[in-house]
Amino acid sequence: ARITLLPGDGIGPEIVAEAKRVLDTIAEKYSHQFETPSCPMGGNAIDEFGDPLPPQTLETCKASQAILLGAVGGPKWDDPSAKTRPEAGLLQIRKELGLFANLRPIKPYSELLDASPLKREIIEGTDILFFRELTGGIYFGESGRMEHPDGEKAFSVMTYTTSEIARIVRLAAESARNRGGKLTSVDKANVLEVSRLWRQVAADVVKNEFPDIEYEVVLVDAMAMHLISRPSDFDVVVTGNMFGDILTDEGSMLPGSLGLLPSASLGESGPGLYEPIHGSAPDIAGQGIANPLATILATAMLLRHSLQLETEAKAVESAVDRVLAAGHRTADIAAGGNPISTSEMGSFVL
Amino acid sequence: ARITLLPGDGIGPEIVAEAKRVLDTIAEKYSHQFETPSCPMGGNAIDEFGDPLPPQTLETCKASQAILLGAVGGPKWDDPSAKTRPEAGLLQIRKELGLFANLRPIKPYSELLDASPLKREIIEGTDILFFRELTGGIYFGESGRMEHPDGEKAFSVMTYTTSEIARIVRLAAESARNRGGKLTSVDKANVLEVSRLWRQVAADVVKNEFPDIEYEVVLVDAMAMHLISRPSDFDVVVTGNMFGDILTDEGSMLPGSLGLLPSASLGESGPGLYEPIHGSAPDIAGQGIANPLATILATAMLLRHSLQLETEAKAVESAVDRVLAAGHRTADIAAGGNPISTSEMGSFVL
Ligand SMILES: CC(C)[C@H](C(=O)O)[C@@H](O)C(=O)O
Ligand SMILES: CC(C)[C@H](C(=O)O)[C@@H](O)C(=O)O
Repeated sequence: ARITLLPGDGIGPEIVAEAKRVLDTIAEKYSHQFETPSCPMGGNAIDEFGDPLPPQTLETCKASQAILLGAVGGPKWDDPSAKTRPEAGLLQIRKELGLFANLRPIKPYSELLDASPLKREIIEGTDILFFRELTGGIYFGESGRMEHPDGEKAFSVMTYTTSEIARIVRLAAESARNRGGKLTSVDKANVLEVSRLWRQVAADVVKNEFPDIEYEVVLVDAMAMHLISRPSDFDVVVTGNMFGDILTDEGSMLPGSLGLLPSASLGESGPGLYEPIHGSAPDIAGQGIANPLATILATAMLLRHSLQLETEAKAVESAVDRVLAAGHRTADIAAGGNPISTSEMGSFVL
Repeated sequence: ARITLLPGDGIGPEIVAEAKRVLDTIAEKYSHQFETPSCPMGGNAIDEFGDPLPPQTLETCKASQAILLGAVGGPKWDDPSAKTRPEAGLLQIRKELGLFANLRPIKPYSELLDASPLKREIIEGTDILFFRELTGGIYFGESGRMEHPDGEKAFSVMTYTTSEIARIVRLAAESARNRGGKLTSVDKANVLEVSRLWRQVAADVVKNEFPDIEYEVVLVDAMAMHLISRPSDFDVVVTGNMFGDILTDEGSMLPGSLGLLPSASLGESGPGLYEPIHGSAPDIAGQGIANPLATILATAMLLRHSLQLETEAKAVESAVDRVLAAGHRTADIAAGGNPISTSEMGSFVL
């Protein structure tokens, strides 16, 4: 199988290097052949090619079974008036590969619960899988500016079609059926017409195809509260692109460390894209102290969802479990203890 | 002064009744004349007039110095296919009175900190004042549905003009100047054109008119994280209607009880609207056990912002402080202790 690596910027190359070692070891132990080309993307690609997603990178990605991304961006490319920015590459690859479903598991590790800003009794037992729609909504609707008596007027259109809603709800409902059996759809149907269509289509899909699962709808503002006050009440949560962006980031605070959270972006067919949810952390780049575990856990998701290698995925996840149980910690989760380096952490997982 | 009461639905009438007693007492003690007409609004107005905001109610509101709202809505009026809903009245009154600025203080009471889902060391010292834009953005942009090869397509437009952005940022910046001196503007300028205009106008206003305050911009997804992980780093936060809806509700979880949080909605001139941020709690309506303190604190904001009665506002707030310090608790904040009733709580404040 071909797995394209997009190390990206900042700590990206360091953490992807550890994930590659994990892939190499899996290949060896389980007798697979993994080809792992590495391509420029993000700020480094802007520097080299003036384009955050060069055509050659996109071609290589399209000809892969899966893509592993480190992180992109950094202050160097943050100028709002710049011609292009690393984020543009991210949005483009999602759209070009049709990665309409962003999966984000939120499941705290019990050893690290004390690092959570939430009280233990609130967070304990939490196990949420978010499905965020990723190629529609206000991210990809029409937008622009016009003259206005006041000065200027700018607009961005949030839009969804029946089939865009149906396919992400279907995927989420299938997953709910295989997990805790409960699906929560989040919208703002008391105000937005686009949410009213969302609510209607979601209800139809569930009623017709998943009558066996428990189903509820929650308003986005209420969900922002419930996520903090009773996170353990949720199982699978499905929502649109913008609401998902906000809620999954809010949810990512629950476990107490961003350094352990992976995400997967999947399409109807074709390669999936896997990445840690944390950023490129330019402040610690090049120091060999970044936590590679989220990227390694993203690699486990890659093995599971794009290569159908469940045993191998589980092997990686249980290695991470054991490494944490043994007390090994990089600086971000060391809480005053003695931190190990990026590559030491990688070696313990191997 | 005329202060129009809109008791609304559910527990609304019970909590507004206590606030009215507070207003009566303030009038007596400080020799003011308050006229307090009470008008139908919300579900009860739909039942009686088929309209959540009857013209007569709107007229009375317009002819007032200030408006005190209990809460509107309930399962009885929740049918999405209904011709009108209580929320429509809320959106209409905001628009009709030009209430473009929604102020929401988030300041936990130290006696109640243990009720917070967040750890004490995270929440301690938090004192945020949100300014949410309330009459623009995606709440009031064009919206609709059209046929689509897939089925249907729905859209809702998020839009802002230079002056809509400038006036709310100006108000927030003025408030920052009088408080901790720091302003945070929240947007999604890395994706949305409308946010790029927001960011540009906000920066201009601050640079030209408030060069003395500390100013930062934060992306909405990052803000959803920071609010949980380091809430005490913020002072005044300004953002658009939709982002504000989500973030203020998230923030409302921090103090551990919705029952103590007031909000004010202000326009350029004309009456302001004051209300507790909690809902109509139909499950406990009519039992006389609801917490009236948020509504009483909203009344203090009313005295301060619409009637310029700072001494009277402080008197109400310090009465609430003392009642809490003395250990009086309604059921929602009793945490196993012996709860008092709505009217007992009102009497203690008096
Ligand atoms: C970088 C940005 C464009 C992106 C988004 O908003 O989708 C990020 O926040 C994410 O969630 O992957
Ligand atoms: C009821 C609803 C329309 C309203 C809003 O979204 O503005 C509410 O959530 C609020 O925040 O006041």
